[in-house]
Amino acid sequence: MPVYKAPVDDAVFLLGDVLHFDEFSQLPGFGDVTGEMLALILREAAKLAEEVVQPLNQIGDREGCVRHEDATVTTAKGFRAAYRAVAEGGWIGLAAPQEYGGQGLPYTLSALTNEFASSANMSFAMYSGLTQGALAALLRHGDEEQKRLYAPKMASGVWSGTMNLTEPQCGTDLGLLTTKATPRPDGSYSITGQKIFISAGEHDLAENIVHFVLARIEGAPAGVKGISLFITPKFDVRPDGALGPRNNVFCGSLEHKMGIHGNATCVMNYDNARGYLVGEANRGLNAMFVMMNEARLGVAIQGLALSEVAYQNAAAYARERLQGRSLAGSKNPDGKADPIIVHPDVRRMLLEIRAFNEAARGLALGAALDSDVAHRSKDAAARQVAEDRLGLLTPVLKGVFTDLGFENTVKAQQVFGGHGYIAEWGMEQFVRDARITMIYEGANGIQALDLVGRKLPKDGGRAIMAYFKEIGEFIAGGSADDALKPYVDPLQAALGDLRKATMWLMQNGLARPDNAGAASYDYMHLFGRVALGYIWARIAKAALEKKNREPASATAMETKLIVGRYFMERMLPETSLRLARIVTGADTMMSLDAEMF
Amino acid sequence: MPVYKAPVDDAVFLLGDVLHFDEFSQLPGFGDVTGEMLALILREAAKLAEEVVQPLNQIGDREGCVRHEDATVTTAKGFRAAYRAVAEGGWIGLAAPQEYGGQGLPYTLSALTNEFASSANMSFAMYSGLTQGALAALLRHGDEEQKRLYAPKMASGVWSGTMNLTEPQCGTDLGLLTTKATPRPDGSYSITGQKIFISAGEHDLAENIVHFVLARIEGAPAGVKGISLFITPKFDVRPDGALGPRNNVFCGSLEHKMGIHGNATCVMNYDNARGYLVGEANRGLNAMFVMMNEARLGVAIQGLALSEVAYQNAAAYARERLQGRSLAGSKNPDGKADPIIVHPDVRRMLLEIRAFNEAARGLALGAALDSDVAHRSKDAAARQVAEDRLGLLTPVLKGVFTDLGFENTVKAQQVFGGHGYIAEWGMEQFVRDARITMIYEGANGIQALDLVGRKLPKDGGRAIMAYFKEIGEFIAGGSADDALKPYVDPLQAALGDLRKATMWLMQNGLARPDNAGAASYDYMHLFGRVALGYIWARIAKAALEKKNREPASATAMETKLIVGRYFMERMLPETSLRLARIVTGADTMMSLDAEMF
Repeated sequence: MPVYKAPVDDAVFLLGDVLHFDEFSQLPGFGDVTGEMLALILREAAKLAEEVVQPLNQIGDREGCVRHEDATVTTAKGFRAAYRAVAEGGWIGLAAPQEYGGQGLPYTLSALTNEFASSANMSFAMYSGLTQGALAALLRHGDEEQKRLYAPKMASGVWSGTMNLTEPQCGTDLGLLTTKATPRPDGSYSITGQKIFISAGEHDLAENIVHFVLARIEGAPAGVKGISLFITPKFDVRPDGALGPRNNVFCGSLEHKMGIHGNATCVMNYDNARGYLVGEANRGLNAMFVMMNEARLGVAIQGLALSEVAYQNAAAYARERLQGRSLAGSKNPDGKADPIIVHPDVRRMLLEIRAFNEAARGLALGAALDSDVAHRSKDAAARQVAEDRLGLLTPVLKGVFTDLGFENTVKAQQVFGGHGYIAEWGMEQFVRDARITMIYEGANGIQALDLVGRKLPKDGGRAIMAYFKEIGEFIAGGSADDALKPYVDPLQAALGDLRKATMWLMQNGLARPDNAGAASYDYMHLFGRVALGYIWARIAKAALEKKNREPASATAMETKLIVGRYFMERMLPETSLRLARIVTGADTMMSLDAEMF
Repeated sequence: MPVYKAPVDDAVFLLGDVLHFDEFSQLPGFGDVTGEMLALILREAAKLAEEVVQPLNQIGDREGCVRHEDATVTTAKGFRAAYRAVAEGGWIGLAAPQEYGGQGLPYTLSALTNEFASSANMSFAMYSGLTQGALAALLRHGDEEQKRLYAPKMASGVWSGTMNLTEPQCGTDLGLLTTKATPRPDGSYSITGQKIFISAGEHDLAENIVHFVLARIEGAPAGVKGISLFITPKFDVRPDGALGPRNNVFCGSLEHKMGIHGNATCVMNYDNARGYLVGEANRGLNAMFVMMNEARLGVAIQGLALSEVAYQNAAAYARERLQGRSLAGSKNPDGKADPIIVHPDVRRMLLEIRAFNEAARGLALGAALDSDVAHRSKDAAARQVAEDRLGLLTPVLKGVFTDLGFENTVKAQQVFGGHGYIAEWGMEQFVRDARITMIYEGANGIQALDLVGRKLPKDGGRAIMAYFKEIGEFIAGGSADDALKPYVDPLQAALGDLRKATMWLMQNGLARPDNAGAASYDYMHLFGRVALGYIWARIAKAALEKKNREPASATAMETKLIVGRYFMERMLPETSLRLARIVTGADTMMSLDAEMF
């Protein structure tokens, strides 16, 4: 059975030494988590993830969810009690404002505790994660009455939330959606249509489920400009907050999926269900984007989370499994064989995972901090910088973390040989669970298009220019330091590749959009490598400083320096391959007739 | 539900125009398949795969196999009838000698029809495939009496075969195996021990199951030099060929696996089961290697097979699924949206798969031809050339085809968006099934070590030198041809990278084996890219010639030329990244203490 230990020490190092968390103490909610308090909270979250949530991961995979004839759904054994523990611990509303029942703590902390929960049991963590996303949209776009009615119950986890976008004919292209909203005399709407792939659409964990549904008001324009957002609760909510009659929205069936069996993925049928408009009519997509951006960062973190737990188990197995002898002479001459960690190729697999995990965690926490600054800072200039960087990095993190997260679960599984293919060892579940992260919340190809088509040109390229400048300044500041050279020099080369690719896109993508489309995926990954390389260089800088400052940290810091060097030597050079692919353009791929595929 | 159409035309083109199959007509068995006969046989195989075997693929995945209390195992609905059709059609013994009940046809044909069968239903095809591997070992190492007793029944599929190597403590490192063989007075042996991960170990398709088992004769040396190979039939076989008493070998349990649910993966318990020594005592590993080499090529072909069927379904979906609009202006203005094949990033995914598939098929068929030459030619020099090349390419094909085959099933699944994650569409099954190919028959890291540690230095590097020379001569012959330039020039650059990497290995790997280990995986993939690039250049040459010779073939040949150009532009350049990784050596990865992972 797999094990999991939340990386609290690494998180504290990243937040404290690399991202200088203490410098944000003026932001609302940050003052409460200074010094030792931060580690205390994280250790509590770790305990919950390790002891309560993780032991249910394989059970959820095996049992899945069951839909009954009355369209109710029960989750796997133990999920209800664990969900109560999470909800009652205040973890769902950790970052929600106190006036709406939350803890008012940094979103950054919530992102981190979500990593722990997702490593422990991604299917389970999704029930809370979707509620957090729905709550964010409510708080941003709902009116006061809606917030008063729904937010505290959602923040406390007594009710859960869902996002309802996809329909059979309408996935990426939301303009095609046909779910109808018909105004009722009392100001509410009748919602009718079918939604598919609805995570946590029906279950037995919460007293009510608040569906956030995209639908088209009768007579609204076609396409994405005629879509509105509605709250459609499973049980209608009376003005005093008590539950009213059962609404006419039901789970028609559960999808049979490759993974995340513990989460109920539902076909949801709306048949004149009562819905309440959120925000302005026909502006539903904008409201939904609030959920989608946080959700995308959340999914990126899921990619990291599965990579982390897969790594931990593979590393443990590699230290214990005896098979073969070191090519450089036995390391365990008294045993029947050496542990497989002696083999360079096993180390290659482990280091490729580990070198991603630590940097990805740094990037995710940096993005979460940007989100906190963007939403909480009083300094408009700081908000803009943070918003720009977050907008730019969100598709990169979603696309790259989930692609690599999945690949890493595959590598970790490979370390186990044949045992990796057997269910009881748990490694193949990580692979199956990780696979969905590349698809949902916008398939990764869509993230790449968002990056290239929207985020790069936005505001005249302000965000990307600022990012280049930031990295350039870091390089300039570190290039004279001999100890930093092995990190800064490769970063400079990689940044050069990214600059060239960006220039190529400007020169070739605008004139011929297919060139941008053809380059987008490689560009996203090129960008991701540079971002990971940049944070590794910052980690290295912090590790060198800490090693000198605190001799007791030397072994841990030296380990980081080695893992970072591995990234620089073997993983960062991928940027030149990506660039070479990008500049070949779209000609060849577009020259084949559709029917010849 | 997925569809499948066997690529008969492509195979005929590859065999005829690229590999010049007709020039081998002097080899035994080749004279019977000249001209139209080849296509006729392939169309028969295609029909069986498409109409009989493929419709059972999802059924096998859903139903799996069932072990009963009496340790018998039943396969999924329809498997028995389909197996009878395959066996009675003579497909299992297609390449076996006629004197032992086979058809005596080229192994190359058998490899190709195995591709079709594996695309259609890999779990099902394994039952026959393992029998073919066991039969090959029997014919090479069994005595006349053993061949007479077992071979015809196996060639006809009335009996099936298995390979029994792995034990709980012993996977890659066969020296650790502990299954015991105790001599009996009558010259047979008592086999006692437990084997795990035994594919097709027990089932209801054949009247008898002939287990080829590795065990250690009492008093034999420790390690791999004390291992012998035994035949241990499920039912003992009387001298007249009739079935005797049930032997004491039973399926203890079925493994719960990520995929290949249709194949019974068994824990096999041997308790003083009667076994018969095959070949010399303590030389079992050598005999097993015969099975393993053919099995490795067979597994490489499984990687290709799943990539092929995944491609076909993804391409069909991409032509039909309407979602979004082309960035270059709508291609379907009257429809609600354009088919997603208009999007460059969808084409990228499809072309990466297709550009692998066609080249991989060419390489696999070339390797199969080498195997035929090595086993059937009267020309000793030709045999040596073929054996050298086959030995060199076997680990490359196994490692690279299965890594890329798996990645390609993931890409094909991605084309389906959310639907790709849902079982009914069948795409996620391809991913789960493909995953095992990277693990069994020697995990891919082991293939890389076999290549670097054994195949490269063998006979003073004769095989690799000959391969370099062969590719170099092809390049020299084509470099003056302008139409071939887009293929030959990138190949030359890639070959240069391979030469440099080989040189680096010679200079750094011998002195420090960890350098070879650290480089091995990237070297295998670098090698694979060059091999794929080389066959693409040969395909391009043949396509250019054919286009001129037969104007009716122009569209098909032009398509190949475009797909080949895609490979050259976007996939072959990976060689430089692989080289860059290789030359970083083992220092960084070996500098981390085992306990710090």
